[in-house]
Amino acid sequence: MTISLTPVPWTDVDIHGGFWKQRQDVNRQVTLPVQHERSRSRIEALNLKRKLRPKKNPHPFDEGGADGYDSDVAKWVEAAAYSLAGHPDRALARKVDRIVDLWAEAQAQDGYLNNYYLRRDPGRRWTDLQRQHELYCAGHLIEAAVAYHQATGKRKLLDVVCGYVDHINDVFGPRPGQLRGYPGHPEIELALVKLYRHTGRPEYLKLSGFFIDKRGTKPHYFDRESKALGEAPDRGIAGEPYSQYQAHRPVREQTTADGHAVQLGYLFAGMADVAGETGDTELLKACKRIWKNIIERRMYITGGVGGRPMERFTFDYDLPNESAYVETCAAIALVFFAHRMLQADGDGQYADVMERALYNGVLSGVSLAGDQFFYANYLALCPEYYLFHHTRPRRRDWFHCACCPSNLARLIASIGGYAFSSSPRAAFVHLYLTASVELEVAGQALRLNLTTDYPWKGKVNIEVEPQRPARFALALRIPGWCERAAATVNGKPVALAGITRKGYARIVRRWAPGDRIELNMAMPVERMYAHPSVRNDTGRVALQRGPIVYCLEEVDNGADLNAIALPRTARLTARFQDDLLGGVTVVSARARRLRKRGRTDALYQNRPPVIGPTSIRAVPYYAWANRKQEQEMLVWLREG
Amino acid sequence: MTISLTPVPWTDVDIHGGFWKQRQDVNRQVTLPVQHERSRSRIEALNLKRKLRPKKNPHPFDEGGADGYDSDVAKWVEAAAYSLAGHPDRALARKVDRIVDLWAEAQAQDGYLNNYYLRRDPGRRWTDLQRQHELYCAGHLIEAAVAYHQATGKRKLLDVVCGYVDHINDVFGPRPGQLRGYPGHPEIELALVKLYRHTGRPEYLKLSGFFIDKRGTKPHYFDRESKALGEAPDRGIAGEPYSQYQAHRPVREQTTADGHAVQLGYLFAGMADVAGETGDTELLKACKRIWKNIIERRMYITGGVGGRPMERFTFDYDLPNESAYVETCAAIALVFFAHRMLQADGDGQYADVMERALYNGVLSGVSLAGDQFFYANYLALCPEYYLFHHTRPRRRDWFHCACCPSNLARLIASIGGYAFSSSPRAAFVHLYLTASVELEVAGQALRLNLTTDYPWKGKVNIEVEPQRPARFALALRIPGWCERAAATVNGKPVALAGITRKGYARIVRRWAPGDRIELNMAMPVERMYAHPSVRNDTGRVALQRGPIVYCLEEVDNGADLNAIALPRTARLTARFQDDLLGGVTVVSARARRLRKRGRTDALYQNRPPVIGPTSIRAVPYYAWANRKQEQEMLVWLREG
Repeated sequence: MTISLTPVPWTDVDIHGGFWKQRQDVNRQVTLPVQHERSRSRIEALNLKRKLRPKKNPHPFDEGGADGYDSDVAKWVEAAAYSLAGHPDRALARKVDRIVDLWAEAQAQDGYLNNYYLRRDPGRRWTDLQRQHELYCAGHLIEAAVAYHQATGKRKLLDVVCGYVDHINDVFGPRPGQLRGYPGHPEIELALVKLYRHTGRPEYLKLSGFFIDKRGTKPHYFDRESKALGEAPDRGIAGEPYSQYQAHRPVREQTTADGHAVQLGYLFAGMADVAGETGDTELLKACKRIWKNIIERRMYITGGVGGRPMERFTFDYDLPNESAYVETCAAIALVFFAHRMLQADGDGQYADVMERALYNGVLSGVSLAGDQFFYANYLALCPEYYLFHHTRPRRRDWFHCACCPSNLARLIASIGGYAFSSSPRAAFVHLYLTASVELEVAGQALRLNLTTDYPWKGKVNIEVEPQRPARFALALRIPGWCERAAATVNGKPVALAGITRKGYARIVRRWAPGDRIELNMAMPVERMYAHPSVRNDTGRVALQRGPIVYCLEEVDNGADLNAIALPRTARLTARFQDDLLGGVTVVSARARRLRKRGRTDALYQNRPPVIGPTSIRAVPYYAWANRKQEQEMLVWLREG
Repeated sequence: MTISLTPVPWTDVDIHGGFWKQRQDVNRQVTLPVQHERSRSRIEALNLKRKLRPKKNPHPFDEGGADGYDSDVAKWVEAAAYSLAGHPDRALARKVDRIVDLWAEAQAQDGYLNNYYLRRDPGRRWTDLQRQHELYCAGHLIEAAVAYHQATGKRKLLDVVCGYVDHINDVFGPRPGQLRGYPGHPEIELALVKLYRHTGRPEYLKLSGFFIDKRGTKPHYFDRESKALGEAPDRGIAGEPYSQYQAHRPVREQTTADGHAVQLGYLFAGMADVAGETGDTELLKACKRIWKNIIERRMYITGGVGGRPMERFTFDYDLPNESAYVETCAAIALVFFAHRMLQADGDGQYADVMERALYNGVLSGVSLAGDQFFYANYLALCPEYYLFHHTRPRRRDWFHCACCPSNLARLIASIGGYAFSSSPRAAFVHLYLTASVELEVAGQALRLNLTTDYPWKGKVNIEVEPQRPARFALALRIPGWCERAAATVNGKPVALAGITRKGYARIVRRWAPGDRIELNMAMPVERMYAHPSVRNDTGRVALQRGPIVYCLEEVDNGADLNAIALPRTARLTARFQDDLLGGVTVVSARARRLRKRGRTDALYQNRPPVIGPTSIRAVPYYAWANRKQEQEMLVWLREG
């Protein structure tokens, strides 16, 4: 079995207008430069000839750590590569080349390349896979190398990385003398499939499968590792031991989404990749089981995932809005997982979640100006609350553990790669954006030109330009949020009902150059309700329009947002405001607000507060905290 | 100025029936023995001749700590003393005497008596007042000594303790060479006033005032202490430095209730005591300011106080139900504070809060069987939540830091001491219980016999037995929760409206032996509402009947308690159930429950859940988790 869909690579998608062009311009013009600037010490630390100030207890998450050195910089290089392809920039290319040179110089004779160990602890390579991030960092190096080669044709980093991976392939495996280990923090699994696809070398795919299938087997590799280190094995805080690492059981036997949310997303993305490449239906089934558990019980409406403590999945329907974790990287990891499942299973539900995460829990991670970042993306906020807790409720320039900023940069820069797929007889449109895409379908080249004001409007115009007239399907995603869609081809209506399945309207015909599609998706403001077992959301409603989830900000609605209730019958008005938050559709309504009774300051009394009229203004969740930071914010409004 | 009311001591109150007799019997028969048993290692550690197993890092909160050794055992001795007065018990008395002997043997030549320092670190006495608990432990020794002397007439512990306090009085003070310090954890302040009242020695009152007024002055004593210890000063997690200790500013300049909730209660109780004794109206004003802030903005409906992290007050209206702290000791400390304010200010609002805490947030701390204890008293509970957090949602046998169990035991054993006060021309009844009390009013002895089924019924019969007929006021508290009260004297109605002020109906007449009062307080089930700024309680309602706050338990109402909504118009039925939870009044109602829509498992959808009928059964909050532990529980129900 081959995978059912082939994603159209980002290199073949040109985003030249609309929402995502705006985001990509900011990403290129602001985000990439500031991230390089703020990573300077990490980049210089890659230079092994350069002495670093000694540290008392260098830790993998420190500036000099196994994580910090390589992976954050690698993600930045990957982002820069995506950007360079469409927008050549000699200064930026020089910065990247300098980093590539440092990695090449640092690489050991045998191919090994992790700067933390090379610098600090060369004798202890591969001794603490559970907690250190060697294989994780290797995964990000691989992704950077593939992207940079694709973008620029320069082989240097790819060669360095292939040398490193060949070394890893010697060290790990089933043969005598090889280690049976696997990473505490998955990532290399999906990266190895990328490298396999890019180089065609089957050993990379096989190594990915090895890491996946060794995971969680008994006797437990992490137990043996702890023993060798003379340490007590880590039993975790809840659930089965090593569930924090998705290593409590073999991955095929796991039934719920457990442990660190970013790790889980990366791991299962890699599993879906391997399943797609190998036709391993059992592995795909394992992915589907976890997917179902996430989207039916463990995902925020923003597409965010992961709770406190330990940035992990907790339990079914546990989705606290104020005390959540919801790391930006976790929403990104869910995008990766969704994107892989979409290719392997061809079902619009994956694209729905991918889109939900992208427009909400991912984009909220970066300021509109592109220079500040959220690590945690709460769904409710009372700023004083955070005086007493760890994370301050504001986007920040940088983080001690700075995984999110460059992860955002690379995803935004490569967003075109998530929008389209092809199969032998169909072209798929997953995301609606203003772009030209070139792909192959029915044995010949096809160009699609999409123009749209999505996500603010539900109308999409598509010019279909096959090389020659040919019969194939154009599969247009009808999003899960859309209850009424209509389309015309060359002005003539197409009955979508009969041709829509698994979330895609498949318009099959003999397409000829110059054919025009107009797709119209009704985009009313929707009241969204959570499953009644979500104890934090009962009696509450969230506003959503198209893929955009809304929130109330204090700056628009005053303090005490929980004193507001939205009647079920209140009319919801949507209006695009060009001058607000870079241009957003705002939702307004008449609502009700509790006020204290008379002049009494009683904390508790046997008469209910007085209810008075108010009006509310909701803005897209992703755009919050751009006018004022550290203010109240609320996604789930009280209804009534 | 003298204090306006004088509390009738516990020694003069005989509780011989009803609710509190039941609690006192369990306390005596079960709680005191199991606590002694579970404290055995701590008690044995008081024997300095006995070698303890060496510890790597002995810490004040460990078995061998400055807190653990003395204070928890002292509170148990105090509890045992209260019990012995009414119920002589030679075995129990022997256990107490053994402990007293150990303290006497341990006491240093100069009077010093803290077992942690005597054993572990004799050279470092008084060097870390901020974090260690020397003065706190001394306070509990004082309270134990006074109680034991009052109960048994035995002077040994009192002499030991007076020797210790005389030593403390040499070490601390304004004279040259004396330390200007004060305890990190207040407690000794109120204890010194107790000792002053018991011995009549003014230097004890003065020392208490010294500790109070030195607190928070600049240069900061804790800064100097840290410097001397070669450590960085503790800047705390939020607010001004040392606000965790109520030492950020002089106590008279503090305007909000900040820092550790138990510490605050003890400190301000001591301040109210000193203000009452000295007539220091400014100090009393400072107490009133903090009191007002607590009860108008920072107290749970159960009378619990204190949030996470650090067991501290956080900010106005921040009263999360599930992630709170609400330590049992903090509710007890609030009872102490309320009781002192009641004497100093003679206002029923203090008795209201005292009663609220007693019947709810205090009593919930101990199982009905008397053998297990809550440290934290959440107002909402989802048991899986706590798999991922520190405190398991069940009463436990004992704690690493076991301050709560013996604190409960001493309060329950001495509850009679909180019920009555006298002033020159009035006798005050604050709490309604079945008891006989002897007090002095209008220059002669008065005996009151109260009979009541309170808190389940609002009827109280009082026999008034003055030595001789005399004119004085009987001031009966009309609780804040009561909107309709009626009384008769010898069968004739008394118009209460005109004679009730500041929460007390003052029936002034020439009382003669054989006079009978019947007080009837209407006790409907009330819907209680929080101030609209309490973001966790908006749209919610709590049920209260008399002083009893109710909750729903999963064992009665099934899981997903937040899926239940109580309509504002639903009839609330109260019924006493003899066979349930030791006999409690249960509240029932018809309510509504959200159910998922059809067969869909969707986590989010644009149609609201289906609403179906349900019935609910609410039980007193204090009695929850006695049939099943680790189940859902909820105080604030959704309304609608």
